Amino acid sequence: MNIFYTLDILGTVAFAISGTLAAMHKRLDLFGVFIIAFVTAVGGGTLRDILIDRTLVSWMQDLNYVYAIIIATIFAIIIRKKIAYLRTSLFLFDTIGLGIFTIIGAEIGIQQELHPVITIILGTLTATFGGVLRDILCNEIPVIFKKEIYAMACIAGAITFIILSNLEINTNTNHIITILIVIVIRLIAIKFKLSLPTLIIENKS
Amino acid sequence: MNIFYTLDILGTVAFAISGTLAAMHKRLDLFGVFIIAFVTAVGGGTLRDILIDRTLVSWMQDLNYVYAIIIATIFAIIIRKKIAYLRTSLFLFDTIGLGIFTIIGAEIGIQQELHPVITIILGTLTATFGGVLRDILCNEIPVIFKKEIYAMACIAGAITFIILSNLEINTNTNHIITILIVIVIRLIAIKFKLSLPTLIIENKS
Amino acid sequence: MNIFYTLDILGTVAFAISGTLAAMHKRLDLFGVFIIAFVTAVGGGTLRDILIDRTLVSWMQDLNYVYAIIIATIFAIIIRKKIAYLRTSLFLFDTIGLGIFTIIGAEIGIQQELHPVITIILGTLTATFGGVLRDILCNEIPVIFKKEIYAMACIAGAITFIILSNLEINTNTNHIITILIVIVIRLIAIKFKLSLPTLIIENKS
Repeated sequence: MNIFYTLDILGTVAFAISGTLAAMHKRLDLFGVFIIAFVTAVGGGTLRDILIDRTLVSWMQDLNYVYAIIIATIFAIIIRKKIAYLRTSLFLFDTIGLGIFTIIGAEIGIQQELHPVITIILGTLTATFGGVLRDILCNEIPVIFKKEIYAMACIAGAITFIILSNLEINTNTNHIITILIVIVIRLIAIKFKLSLPTLIIENKS
Repeated sequence: MNIFYTLDILGTVAFAISGTLAAMHKRLDLFGVFIIAFVTAVGGGTLRDILIDRTLVSWMQDLNYVYAIIIATIFAIIIRKKIAYLRTSLFLFDTIGLGIFTIIGAEIGIQQELHPVITIILGTLTATFGGVLRDILCNEIPVIFKKEIYAMACIAGAITFIILSNLEINTNTNHIITILIVIVIRLIAIKFKLSLPTLIIENKS
Repeated sequence: MNIFYTLDILGTVAFAISGTLAAMHKRLDLFGVFIIAFVTAVGGGTLRDILIDRTLVSWMQDLNYVYAIIIATIFAIIIRKKIAYLRTSLFLFDTIGLGIFTIIGAEIGIQQELHPVITIILGTLTATFGGVLRDILCNEIPVIFKKEIYAMACIAGAITFIILSNLEINTNTNHIITILIVIVIRLIAIKFKLSLPTLIIENKS
């Protein structure tokens, strides 16, 4: 469980950095950058907690998330001119974060005995909604809707996690396999430039 | 009640199709289209459930909504080039959905013994918030704020529903009259090109 | 407590007017103007109530907020051409609203025995989120992220309020000092054109 918590914090850090970068590209001020970082990192978990009516959302109960976000944001601001060199590490963190957040969401769905389909939605939403909020606040159409295979990786991860849970596989093994699935799908998608088809419709007539 | 449930599913279908069309106009990918369809269909009900602190939002408890949305979205994607021919049916479904969702929201307000004004707001919000989210995600100013008499139809519907409930009219009769009110107001507004006045203010000085 | 309630209503009125002005600048219709006014005025408190899982959000329990918003919006619409003359009063109300809303959020954080850092976040969020929603609905990047020292005033106010609460200062004195801190910081920031640094990052390479 300790490894899991560490990975959770790492995922939060990765998402906070991704929010910081997006906010700096939009030339927001220091406060704006912190807010976008915060929202990107906790947005998915917050929506999940609200939907399942948890008494207090997670980041209100464990301050380590807030500290992790603040440190990650300051770090990203300081090294912002060299961030290109970290691209690979960032991508890895971000994808691990995606996998972890998918697992956390799906695990709660299983605990609450929700239908598997709802559990998959809950996992995917936990993983992706922070990024959606980041893009809305930056006044962009969420990137996830446009070109990344991002969400498909989460859905595949959630399905894997649910199947392995039903097979009563050891929890750590399950977590590792699920995260690997998410990472592999994203890597393959990027390597082969896979993307979902865009559906074009004629202009309003 | 069975008729009501059927109409509820029909309304969900209509809203999902309206979301699908909006997303295709924005050239989103397949996943984006599904998300916008989903959000348009369940957004209003979800906000309502969150505001009244329901333990679990509706679509998490009854999977039929999710299936209805998936089928409606696939259907709309397949027939997307011929959708113009369905314009009238779509408009009818959409307006029925509007009426149904207004009733569901207002009914919950009455059950929770909220003040009639709050009940009207809850009904209107249940009916319209999905469309607002659809437009925000598509990076547009919500259409409801700009030209449609849309919300006025909901407000009139909610008022009718509350009055008839207080008069203890038979529930089915009440539902039918309320939905008819919503449909008639929208039809009249479109027929006579009615819209609310736009308030213009001088530019910031 | 009566003074506090009066100030709370005044803050709501100020926020509703600020929403009305923003909506009229975007040439929304009458309904859109009301919605933006409403959302600006109650958005922060609603998010706060949802995050702490309050059974029913505040404005659903006390109709005076709704009436205050409706009256303020009608007032702002009527005098819209002369609103420039009221700029100073508006700014004062708006800042008082900011202070009050910060206090209300922080007070709930203290009652719920949240960590001071979370309490500061809750106060700031209560005060600022209505404006963020206003800007999202108007399809703008929230102004708070870009140039105003707005949020810093709230954070300073929340810190002041928490310290004075711990010192067990008389409640009314605490409220007045906190509000004055918020007002003074905003005035100084505007007077000396202070703003947080904008972090610029090179374009995506």
